[in-house]
Amino acid sequence: MSDVVNLKEKLSMIQEQWSPRIVAQMNDYHLKIAKIQGEFVWHTHAETDEVFMVIDGEMEIHTRNEVIAMQAGEIYVVAKGVEHKPVAEKECSILMVEPAGTMNTGDAGGKLTVDSPDWI
Amino acid sequence: MSDVVNLKEKLSMIQEQWSPRIVAQMNDYHLKIAKIQGEFVWHTHAETDEVFMVIDGEMEIHTRNEVIAMQAGEIYVVAKGVEHKPVAEKECSILMVEPAGTMNTGDAGGKLTVDSPDWI
Repeated sequence: MSDVVNLKEKLSMIQEQWSPRIVAQMNDYHLKIAKIQGEFVWHTHAETDEVFMVIDGEMEIHTRNEVIAMQAGEIYVVAKGVEHKPVAEKECSILMVEPAGTMNTGDAGGKLTVDSPDWI
Repeated sequence: MSDVVNLKEKLSMIQEQWSPRIVAQMNDYHLKIAKIQGEFVWHTHAETDEVFMVIDGEMEIHTRNEVIAMQAGEIYVVAKGVEHKPVAEKECSILMVEPAGTMNTGDAGGKLTVDSPDWI
């Protein structure tokens, strides 16, 4: 845990989209990075808030009530229990902060689920 | 908590150095930003790890064993119990993630202590 994490360097090592990788741990929380493009599945994390930060590109977080537009250098916290769906027209690189073990697809499951993300 | 946080916009509103401001909350954690320059005090957080991310500029985190050099886009997690001291030759803008209520000067106290940071 004593290494400096260069986000762009780590992101350059990721090929797959929607495949979160752990870059750091703080207490029982993981910091994860991912490349995303297209529409993710609607899902909810009943037990935790979730931090999204855009590192490169643009994305939207859709909730059932609104569309939150985000660009590089911006942070948004999805409150626990709020159904949401990340969307990115072009490939977008993001950082997420959430409790270790939080499933990327929350309650929804499905083929995009990554049970146990690898460190990168 | 439903606003997008633009880090550079928020940072432009901060004049004072070493004066952390809260920009977001995730569960019982706060995301804080600060402008730093010079040397902070040696201190320890006995109960928690602490995430540092450089948003703009360069900084070092000194521990009693090493000097960790960081630049924009880099993250480092100071493990709980590790005595450390942030240092920045020129003004540097940072994002921190730590439990709400974590004192900026940890166990050290002193004139740089900010008991209860304001939101910005």
